[in-house]
Parts: sequence; C-alpha cells; structure tokens
Amino acid sequence: MERNDDSAVQADAGDRAIPTEAGPLSPDALWKIDAFWRACNYLSAGMLYLRANPLLREPLKPEHFKRRLLGHWGSDPGQSFVLTHLSRAIRAQDLNVLFVSGPGHGAPATLAHAYLEGCYTEVYPDRTLDEAGMLRFFRQFSFPGGIGSHCTPETPGSIHEGGELGYSLSHAFGAAFDNPDLIVAAMVGDGEAETGPLATSWHSNKFLNPVTDGAVLPILHLNGYKIANPTILARIPHEELAALFVGYGYEPHFVEGHEPAAMHQRMARTIDACVARIRAIQHHARSSNDLARPRWPMIVLRTPKGWTGPAEVDGHRVEGSWRSHQVPIADPATNAAHLRLVEAWLRSYAPDELFDAHGTLIPALRALAPVGARRIGANPHANGGLLRRPLEMPDFADYAVEVPAPGAHYASSTQALGVFLRDVMKRNMTQFRVFSPDEASSNKLTAIYDASPKTWLGERVPQDDDGGALAPDGRVMEMLSEHTLEGWFEGYTLTGRHGLFATYEAFVHVIDSMFNQHAKWLEKSKHDLGWRAPIPSLNMLITSLVWRQDHNGFTHQDPGFLDVVANKTPDVVRIYLPPDANCLLSVADHCLRSRDYVNVIVADKQPHLQYLDMASAATHCAKGIGIWDWASTDQGQTPDLVVACAGDVPTMEALAAAEILTQHFADLRLRFVNVVDLFRLMPETGHPHGLSDRDFDSLFTQDKPVIFNFHSYPTLIHKFIYNRANHRNFHVHGYREQGSINTPLELAIINRIDRFSLAIDAIDRTPCLRETGAHVKEWLKDQIVRSVAYAHAEGADPDAITQWTWGRTAQ
Amino acid sequence: MERNDDSAVQADAGDRAIPTEAGPLSPDALWKIDAFWRACNYLSAGMLYLRANPLLREPLKPEHFKRRLLGHWGSDPGQSFVLTHLSRAIRAQDLNVLFVSGPGHGAPATLAHAYLEGCYTEVYPDRTLDEAGMLRFFRQFSFPGGIGSHCTPETPGSIHEGGELGYSLSHAFGAAFDNPDLIVAAMVGDGEAETGPLATSWHSNKFLNPVTDGAVLPILHLNGYKIANPTILARIPHEELAALFVGYGYEPHFVEGHEPAAMHQRMARTIDACVARIRAIQHHARSSNDLARPRWPMIVLRTPKGWTGPAEVDGHRVEGSWRSHQVPIADPATNAAHLRLVEAWLRSYAPDELFDAHGTLIPALRALAPVGARRIGANPHANGGLLRRPLEMPDFADYAVEVPAPGAHYASSTQALGVFLRDVMKRNMTQFRVFSPDEASSNKLTAIYDASPKTWLGERVPQDDDGGALAPDGRVMEMLSEHTLEGWFEGYTLTGRHGLFATYEAFVHVIDSMFNQHAKWLEKSKHDLGWRAPIPSLNMLITSLVWRQDHNGFTHQDPGFLDVVANKTPDVVRIYLPPDANCLLSVADHCLRSRDYVNVIVADKQPHLQYLDMASAATHCAKGIGIWDWASTDQGQTPDLVVACAGDVPTMEALAAAEILTQHFADLRLRFVNVVDLFRLMPETGHPHGLSDRDFDSLFTQDKPVIFNFHSYPTLIHKFIYNRANHRNFHVHGYREQGSINTPLELAIINRIDRFSLAIDAIDRTPCLRETGAHVKEWLKDQIVRSVAYAHAEGADPDAITQWTWGRTAQ
Repeated sequence: MERNDDSAVQADAGDRAIPTEAGPLSPDALWKIDAFWRACNYLSAGMLYLRANPLLREPLKPEHFKRRLLGHWGSDPGQSFVLTHLSRAIRAQDLNVLFVSGPGHGAPATLAHAYLEGCYTEVYPDRTLDEAGMLRFFRQFSFPGGIGSHCTPETPGSIHEGGELGYSLSHAFGAAFDNPDLIVAAMVGDGEAETGPLATSWHSNKFLNPVTDGAVLPILHLNGYKIANPTILARIPHEELAALFVGYGYEPHFVEGHEPAAMHQRMARTIDACVARIRAIQHHARSSNDLARPRWPMIVLRTPKGWTGPAEVDGHRVEGSWRSHQVPIADPATNAAHLRLVEAWLRSYAPDELFDAHGTLIPALRALAPVGARRIGANPHANGGLLRRPLEMPDFADYAVEVPAPGAHYASSTQALGVFLRDVMKRNMTQFRVFSPDEASSNKLTAIYDASPKTWLGERVPQDDDGGALAPDGRVMEMLSEHTLEGWFEGYTLTGRHGLFATYEAFVHVIDSMFNQHAKWLEKSKHDLGWRAPIPSLNMLITSLVWRQDHNGFTHQDPGFLDVVANKTPDVVRIYLPPDANCLLSVADHCLRSRDYVNVIVADKQPHLQYLDMASAATHCAKGIGIWDWASTDQGQTPDLVVACAGDVPTMEALAAAEILTQHFADLRLRFVNVVDLFRLMPETGHPHGLSDRDFDSLFTQDKPVIFNFHSYPTLIHKFIYNRANHRNFHVHGYREQGSINTPLELAIINRIDRFSLAIDAIDRTPCLRETGAHVKEWLKDQIVRSVAYAHAEGADPDAITQWTWGRTAQ
Repeated sequence: MERNDDSAVQADAGDRAIPTEAGPLSPDALWKIDAFWRACNYLSAGMLYLRANPLLREPLKPEHFKRRLLGHWGSDPGQSFVLTHLSRAIRAQDLNVLFVSGPGHGAPATLAHAYLEGCYTEVYPDRTLDEAGMLRFFRQFSFPGGIGSHCTPETPGSIHEGGELGYSLSHAFGAAFDNPDLIVAAMVGDGEAETGPLATSWHSNKFLNPVTDGAVLPILHLNGYKIANPTILARIPHEELAALFVGYGYEPHFVEGHEPAAMHQRMARTIDACVARIRAIQHHARSSNDLARPRWPMIVLRTPKGWTGPAEVDGHRVEGSWRSHQVPIADPATNAAHLRLVEAWLRSYAPDELFDAHGTLIPALRALAPVGARRIGANPHANGGLLRRPLEMPDFADYAVEVPAPGAHYASSTQALGVFLRDVMKRNMTQFRVFSPDEASSNKLTAIYDASPKTWLGERVPQDDDGGALAPDGRVMEMLSEHTLEGWFEGYTLTGRHGLFATYEAFVHVIDSMFNQHAKWLEKSKHDLGWRAPIPSLNMLITSLVWRQDHNGFTHQDPGFLDVVANKTPDVVRIYLPPDANCLLSVADHCLRSRDYVNVIVADKQPHLQYLDMASAATHCAKGIGIWDWASTDQGQTPDLVVACAGDVPTMEALAAAEILTQHFADLRLRFVNVVDLFRLMPETGHPHGLSDRDFDSLFTQDKPVIFNFHSYPTLIHKFIYNRANHRNFHVHGYREQGSINTPLELAIINRIDRFSLAIDAIDRTPCLRETGAHVKEWLKDQIVRSVAYAHAEGADPDAITQWTWGRTAQ
C-alpha cells in the first residue's frame, strides 16, 4: 500500500483530545469552513424538525415541530463535511466537480449545501435566502406534497437519487467518461458498499482512460452503521481495509476522527493531496500519452454516524450509533426533556452566528461557495440535457440488408446493426459508447471494433487482440457485470451523452431494479421538473433470445423483462420487436435520436429470415404495426382469420403457419399482421403509442379469430388488449416456461409457438377450417412428432427451421 | 498478507521448464493423479465431439463427430484438476466435501468426474462404465433431448447450475451454515468474479461461525478469459491480487503454472495446507470456544484457459486464449487437418492407458476415488432433500392476535409473525435461519432476536447490541446485500434446511434473476428427476410495501415482483397476500411446512386493521379466497356488486368503500370477497390452485360488476382472469406507478385504490347505483379533495387512514 501523509493520523482515530492540528487551514479559514459546515448541519436538522421558528429566534415550543418527523440524519454531517471541503477546493483551484451522493438517504446534506450555495433558490425561487424562504425550505422536506429524503431528481446538482443503494460509483464513472476536465466526487456509503453492484464497481478504474476521461474520487464514508447494524467495512481491521482498496487498485487516504478542528485540517490536506495526485496522473498521462493504468487516489472517511448530533438520549447512545439513522429524537413535541435536547442540539450550531437578522447566511460564509456553474448544486453535468448534443447520424438506409424477396434469405440482424453502430461511433467519438457484458462479439456486434477497440487498462498479452482489440482508449465497454455496465450507461446519459447497452435477454433481469429506478428518475424529471433538460434515451438491445438457447438451455430462457418494463409509466418506456435486420436498423435509428425514454429493442443475434427491404421496413416501423399484404390472402376483405406476430422467431413461425394454412385451404382469407412497436397494442388512453379502438379493430377485426405468436410470455399481450372488442378471440402463443437445450424447432414446439401448433390452433378456432381441417391437423401433428424424433436421433438442427423460406412449404 | 509455502512458487508461473518439483506426491501417486485427471479431460473433450468411436479404437473419421458441436471446454481442465485433487484429499483424510462449480459452463468436468467416480451410473444406470455406456454418456451431452453444458439439476453432486454467474460463493456459504463437518469447495470463475453478487459475497466470511458452521474453501480460478475478453482479476499485478484477498479477510494461497507434474505437486501441497489450516482453525475455535473471526484460507489457481487443449489452430492461439471458451476446433468433420488436430489432442490423454478393453477405468485409477457418500458426485448435501428434517413447529394458533370484532383494532402483522418465527427458531436451532438485508428490525420482526442474536464476526462495540444483539453464533442473517442473502438462503435450502427471507418489496427486484434461476432449478428437479428428494421451500416475506412509502417515496414503490413470479412454472410458485396478522400466521405456517416451492408472502410491516380471529383466518387461508359475510349485504343472494380485494391496504380501502356504499345505498346487495392465495384466480388448468370456472363464478358471478382492489399492478389480475366468464366486468384498481412521499391515503387516491375512488367506480359500474348515486359521487369527490388538502396543509396522516375502523364511517 502506498501510504500518504494522512494515513499517519490514523492512530488518532477516536482520540477526542486534539484541539488543533497542523494543516493547510489558517485559523480564520478553519473558523469559516467549520461555520459553513455548521450552517449545513443546522439546516439539515432544521428540515427534519421545524415547521416554524426556523432560526430559533424564540425558544422552541411543541407547535414549532412538524407533526410527523421523517427523514435521515445519520449520514448528513459527514456528507456536508465532504461537500464543504469540496467547495473549498473548487474555489481554491477552479475545479469542475460533480458530486454523487451514494448514501442518498442523506439528502438533507445535499439540499442544505445547495441552498447555502444559492443554487436552490435559483431553481425554486420561493425558497429564498431569508427566514421566510428557509421556513418554506424546511417545511417542504419529507412533507406531503414536498420532497423526500433522498437526492431525488428535484435536487439541484444530483444525478443519483440513492433511493436504491449500490450504484453511486458506477454512475460516477459513467459521468466521468469523455469528460476529461471533470472530477466526480463519489461519496460511497458503507451500507451500500455491502451491495454486490457497489462491490464490483470499484473495478471501474480498469476502464478509465486518464487522457480522455475525467477522474473519479471515491470517498468511502465509514459512517459505522446501516439502519440497525454496523457495517462490514467499518468493522474490519485497518490493515484489511487498506489492503482491500490497494487490491481494488486505489491509493487509499484515510481521514478518521470526530474532533471538528482536527478533522477539518485532515480533510483539507487530504483533498488537496488527492486533487494534486489526480492532476499529476492526468498531466503525466496527457503529456506523455502514457495510458498505463494509474493508481487513482480514494479517501476513507471515518466519522461517527449522526456526527455532532445528540450524544445520548434516555441512556441510549445516539451519535455514533444506528440510532442516528433517521430522526434521532422522535418525540420533542410531546416530551419536554426531549424538546430541550433538540433545542440544545440545534443551538449548538449557533445559528445566530451564521445567519443575519434576515435569516441570510453572513457574507463571510457566502463568500466560501464557488460561483456560477462551479457550485456543486449548479454543475451543468448534473442536468445533462443542457450539455446534450445530438448524435451525428449516418443514414441508416445505407446499411440496408438486401431483401430481393420477403422470407427468402437469412441474415443476422444484430450483425447488420453492428455495422451501423460502427459508423455512429466513428462520427461521435467523444459522446457515444456501446456497453455489453463480454458479449458484443457473441452478440455479433463485432463491426463496432472497427471503430474502436474495447476499453481495457488491465495488463495485456498479444493474443488478447485476436478477435477484437483491447486498448486503454477504447470505447466499447465490456465487463462481466450487468450492474456496472448499466450504471456506467446511466451515468453517461444522465450527463448528456449517448449509447447502447446490449445484453443477453435472460440476464437483463439482473438489472430489473436499476431499470425501475432509472425509469422513475426519467418520469419525475420529465413530468414535474421543467428545469431538467431532456437527456438521451437509455437504449437497450436485448439479444441472445429465449428461442435460440439450443446451447445454454433452460437457465437462459426468460423473456420476462418486457413485463417489468410494461409496468412503468407509459411516457418513459418503449418496446420494439423488429422482425428483421432492416426493421432493427430503422428502430435503432429512431431510438438513438430520441430523448427521455428507456427504449427496449428485442432482436436475436442468430441468422434469421429477412422480410422487408429498407423502404418497406422504414414504413412498417414508422407505423409500428401493420398488415403484410404479401403474406395475406384476404385481398383487403374481411378475413376469416388473422395471424399476428411480434418478434423474429415468432414471425418466422407465424409466416410458415400462414403458408401451411393458405396452401391447404385455398379459399382461406388470411390476414397477416406484424407488430414492431409493442405498445401499439395498448389502448390509446393507456400509452402514447396506443392504437385507437377503430384502428385496432381495422387490423384485428371485432370478431374474427386472431392467432397471435409472441416472443415473450403470452399474458403480456392479453393484458395489453384486455379492453379491445375482439379480445376474446385472441389466442396468444408465447413462452410457457418450458425448455432445455432443445433445437429451435423443438423448443418452439414445446411452447407451441411453432408453425404446426399455430396452424392446428388456427384450424380449431376458425369456423370455416374446423369442419374440413381434420386431416390437415393429423398431418400437422405428425410433423411435430417427426421433427422432434429427427432432432433427438440425429442431434442436428432439423432442416425445417434453418432452411425454410417463404413460398416453399410442401403440402 | 500471510504468505505460505506455495506463494513462493508464484515466480515460476509461466515457466514451462519444471519437469519435477518436490512435493507430497510420490512418483506413483503423481502418475495416478495425473492419469485420473487425463481421464477427466479425455471424457470432457469426448463429450464435446464424439457420437461414435468413444475410445478411439479406430482412427477418427468425420462420421464419428456430432453433427453440431456445442459445449464449453475452457474451464474444464482446471475444474477437473481441482476435482481430482479434492478427491485425493477426501480419500486421504476422510473429508466430507461438497463441490460448487462457479464456472458452471464447464459442466463436462463435473460430469466426467462423477462418471469416473461411479456416481453417474448409479443415478443413470444406462450410462455404464464401459464403452457402450461411455458412448451414451458422450451422446447425451449438449444434444437434443440430453443435458446441457452447465451443472444443471441433472448433474449428480451439484447444487449450483452456474447458468447465471455470480452465486457460487453465496451458495457455498449457505451450504456450510450449520454443517460443522462439511467443507464446501467453491470454485469461483474469474468471469463470474466480475459480477457484483460474487464481488460482495467474499465478505460472507464475516458471517461464518467456526464452531457450528462448516468451512468454505474458495478456489478462484484465474482461467484468464471470459467469452471474448481477458478477466480483470487475471490482469492485475500479483500484489494487488494478494492484497484484495487479504482485504476480503482471507489467507490466499497461490497455485500458478501449467506444467502438469509441477502443478500437481503444488496443488496437492496447497490443498493439504488449506485443509490443515481449516482443521486448525476449527480445532482452536471448538476446543476453546473462541469465536473470533478466523482468516480462512483460499486458493488462487492460475492455469491456462483450455489447458492441455490444442495450443494453436490456423495460426490462432487456442490454449491460453478466449478461443478455448467453447469448442476449440469447430469443424473437424469437414476439415481434414482439423480432424487430425482433434485426434492428436484426444490421443494426447492416452485413453488406452486409462481405460481397459471394455472401456472401464483401470483399477489403479478407480481406486483413487473416494467411496460411497464421500464421493463428490454422491455427497448427500448435494441432494439436500435426503437430509431434510421437518421443522419442529409450534402451533401457530397460539400466536393469534386477538380480534374481538373485525376491523376494530390495529396491529402490525409482521410483528405478530416475528413472535411465531422466534419460537420456530428456538425449536430448530440447527436448521432454521432468517435472512434480511439489515431490515429485520425495520420490518418489525424484532422478536426473533429473543431466540438468537444477529450473526456477526466483525469487530463489535457496546452500543451495537442496543436494539438487537450481535454475536458470532447468531442465526439471524443481516447483510446489506439481497444477492448474498438470497444466495445463502438458496444454498441453505438446497442442502435441506429451512428459512425465511424478509425483504423490502421494491428491492426484491434486485434478485429477480436469482429467483428465476432457483424456480427453474426446482421445476427441473421436481418434474424430471425422481432421484432428487424434495427440498424445503424458499419462503420470501415481501414487506415495507408500496402503499406505505410516506417516508421513502417513489423509488420504494414497486410491487412488480409478483409479475416476475407469475411467469414461472405454476407448479413451483405460490403467492399469498394475507390481509391481517392471523392470516399471515396461518400462511407462514403452511409455507414453512411445504417443499419444493418458492412461496412469496406479501404483508406490510406497519400497523394495519385486523379482521379475522384465528379460527376464521385458518379457514379463510385454507380456502385461499372467500366471501366475508360480515362485510357483505347480499345475504346469500345474487349480489348487485362484488367488491373484492387482495393485500392489506387494499383490503382496508375496499372495506371502507363497501361501508360507504352500504350506508349510502341501504338496499344494495354487496358481496365482499377477499383473496389470500392469488393463484386461486387462475383457471384450474393454469395453476394447481386455480379455481374451477364454476367455483369462480359462484364467487364473482357471471355478469355483475366486480370492483377489485389489488395490491400490485392491476394488469396481473386481468391476465389471471382473462378467460373467466365475467372478466369484462372486472374493474381492477392497483398501483399505477404514481407516487411520491405521499400520506397513505393520498397515495391510495393518486392510484385510485382509495375508498372514495372505489366507491365512485362502483357507483359508475353498478346499474342500480348509477341512477341515484350522483350526489354520493359528489360527496366522495369532495372527500378526496379535502383529504389531500388536509395532508398538504398539516403534514400529518389524515385521521381517516390511521384511525378508521369498520362500522364507523360517517355519512
């Protein structure tokens, strides 16, 4: 371990008798920084408690307290301490610092600091910098109709709510990518440090380019306790803790203790040392173009939970205990002794010394805050839409797969997409990245490697580059952690940049809850916060789909992410199932240009039949749903039967079924409908893309049987069309949670999305076929038996699935 | 870092010139262990390639190859190496070893080893230990109708499929808890080591009691590459790697190289050293009852990916490259030169030396395997149902909450459950644990601390115990990682023991994909594998529900886990929404006694109205759904309106709505239905608990309006009842993804599950109310406005929600 000066003070931790300690702060500077910090702490505590008398101009009375006390105090003083010291360094060195609050439950600290900086009032003008504004600022907090105690989107300067724990560091690295001047100070809670996503995100330093990326300064806050338990990292020996961060590749700096004056000197010295180290690393790398992985500094800050709060209440230790996690004293309005404790605590910050007669921070302290966009609460990267530049887009039509006839040739849709993405990347080499868990190659997006190597700052050996080069200045992000990739990507888009996350379908569930949080962030930002500029959409390519798991089997079969997505607010989610390469290109183009959505694109990587030339694909995708006339026999008349589909394999099987049916039943009026934009199925009242009932009925009729072949679980279609006139006649086929390492056709058969099962169902459901179709059904059943038997005997793909093309079905 | 002898050989890594090295193996033992390993490797490669000529009795020909080559070779030789050495140690020291294969994609290694031990044939008698059996063994692998290339449930000796990566260590620790004689050897892939869940699960050593738990021996396999990229941990300097594991609290032992003879000596020496260290730790702890956290040993095994496979193919390096990940040579049937390469590779293992004329492993090698249950493939802990002992259960009725009248009193349902769980724990102190992410106390399960402290082997200070003691011999497992808890719990039940996982509703999504994998494991085990004995159910208590997030707001509002659960095979999933404490007790009793399910119980922690005395609750829960006569006015007649509900807050609101309606409309025949067992709503063909149409219609009628108030997203009910006769008249209210830090009533109002909105909807939908109800609707709308205004003005819970009781609604 590299030791720095500060680690020497570790021995002082817990020693309460250090009134002064040598350091960079003059007595005046020390007083000011401590006073600013006290102002933060006063405001943090005030917002927990007060609905009146915000400056304690009169003795506290029961009626001054909020009726219900909610909020989190525990990590506030530590976070304010960091914010105050960061501000000092920003001002002194004109730094560009974005702050990420990992323990987001300590929002009071961030809110208080933003208020004192003046940022809060700029965004919310009635929260003025005086007594009346302070009161409104207090009252809104954790109050019905107000704001919560996390760093929600309402918080100026925040890109990270921290409502769910574990993503602060990956968000921070995402923000730092391609922002060479930025320092992202990421405060990591010792609670969230126990989560898996956080534990692996320390390794993000193997993906940070010291020349073209900014820096991340992690500050692990050993606050000591979670809700009710100590934290692991606060309770391992110093040697283990230091070794852990050396092992993660950092240079740890320790700031430990509780006595404010000494702690201010340590923190100021340490922040200065870390900034100097960051600048030295960057200067070296940038002047010599040495891209060797640096050992970036990080800080371990150990302070008591609820620092400066009540030491003890009713014989229970509070400061330095989990009892500080939320509101340290719960009943001051009804317990006079507790009221006195709260009053003493609040007055310990000496508000009269900090705020003038109007309730405004005194000029000497106001002068401590940086100015303009340098203020942490006003950093433009935290409102990334402000910095968003549209992508330079090539014309997606130039990447068309040639489709001389529908259903005649096979191609990998994602392979075609890879070529398009390659050129998107080439034109946007500072604001576009592709993220994938070690799977860009497996997912056939290899063409992007022609635009950029994979990012890698670990050790390299020659054979690494065989198949896709690795380089420190790569832009393709591959790490085997969906959590880290998703976190990076979110951080990247939240700060205004663009990208695509490609991942295996079954394991996109790994980031279900991250998706949920991001969708909620978008929803609040978009609907309630006019000051937040729209950010680029989060584009997810879901591939290696359920229907082609001949290799990996049952564990890799789960198309249910769409159910998770469909539960979110319709205004921020989109689901596309392009059936072929040209549709995928069209959809991808649309998604990359869009803002404030999560776009989920479902497209398999294997070679699949191609249907639409580019002009048809663009038209089809613009409509999102449509009749394929070339596969229909209804001649614009009312059909006997609608065969519909969404997804690539389901579309092929539905087409094959349609062909079987029309060949066997010459008079059948069959209509073939393909769905690309899944939300077209919803009512127009339920989703902005929803079809009107009239349009829906014009496609699906009001009373004819509809055989719907769906990529995912069939119930999702049922729930979308629940209120449609014809819903009782919809017979949806989809994944039934049945499978193994089956051949594609066998897997389709087991789940009844195969051509034969569809045709059988169509015969059963369609009056004009039911009477005459018995012998066809027998033939179809025999085909099923023979297909499975062939696969089991020969162990090969039945020709039927890999070689079938439209127009060639034998009777 | 503590160094041991083996770390000294680190300098030799990569040096190809070590023909012999001093070590514990005699020349004869060395030959045998190498030969056994070669046999494993031969079988692993054979199962990738061969459909005929399994022992290479004749020259390889194209027709001997499988038509489609699938499977994973990369980690097989390393895993076989470990298995072989573990077997040696088991035999030498009579160890009880369970093996967990983290890189489960290397199933050929586990399969080959189990076959050579004779375990495979005992489970699958036609896979005999001769040429014919070997051929069947080869042909089944990655072959339609056969088995996949992960350690699926079909694999004897496996509790861990490894299909999704990241859970090997947490599964291993779960298996080790309360199994003091067991050593769980957990092979961790360096790919999965990049995942978040794996990265934090190293900290499981802070929760392992050296006296009453077994040991976990992690073996990090630095195989070097993932699918297409190097791995992070293989590409950091030795000092960082060693520091990382010291930081995680282990004593790392390094075994690095590729030359077999030297590697065998190193591995034998290292395993002996690690076992001795484990035994020394345990002896010390058990003889002195010293529960200080030991520094357990772990092994870092660095070998080339695809070790012993083809070194180079067509100028591309294969051994020691990502090109070994799957099938190293893909086209031997069509490329003669490649055929020769495959043949040379297979013959390099000298199968004629290893197998006799019948194709049976020669006796000298067979004698190397342990016998009976000591064989890794036959360890009974890997078929945990065999060891399962039913819980000693107290009578849940003894824990009844007194309910003299329905809807008259408030109680916390989870608090009552906590007392029951306390006594379940007391009676089952070696086979029952409760898991919770730092939330058992927050979730009001604190009574369990009277049975056992929380497990904690980190440092402790006095105030830790204030509110729930910590101790190394605790049984309540709290760590802020849902992944680790879920992994521990799965490992615990897979080895036959019982428990309950209590977690916040919004963040149970964190383990969506783990749930999926476990459900799939259960499904395969239960349906296809008679030899796997049923294991205890995975019981999940979902609490801190969406409807009571007045504190945490929007990020903590997501009841969608039920949608994920409902997608899984009906035979292995159950969802219960007990409306009150006595129902929760009845449901919990049922779940704890059950086997082979994932039971999801949804119950909030806050005080809620109580409805049913214990006798009524038991009857109601046994039926799973039923009419509450005391809340109905239909007198057994056909009702005008059905008000139905599922979930605690929705039940209260539905009851309040029913009361409002019956008070305002004296003649209204209202039927009140409560649903506990959600799958009762499904068709009987769709789920074993599904009601027949007749029973369903007898509850809900065929044509009357049903106002259904649901805990989660309303579409889940729609999809369950899609085919019911009366489904068009179901009007489902549920969470609409709208909310903030609202009071409970305001949140209900925003999402329209509140009493007033329900009553308005009922009036609109019920013909006999529609005509006369206009003035009541106005009154209801006014109530909504007033309720929200009151909350916003006063910042308190409106009395309406915290104080309302049945029978007291004012008109």
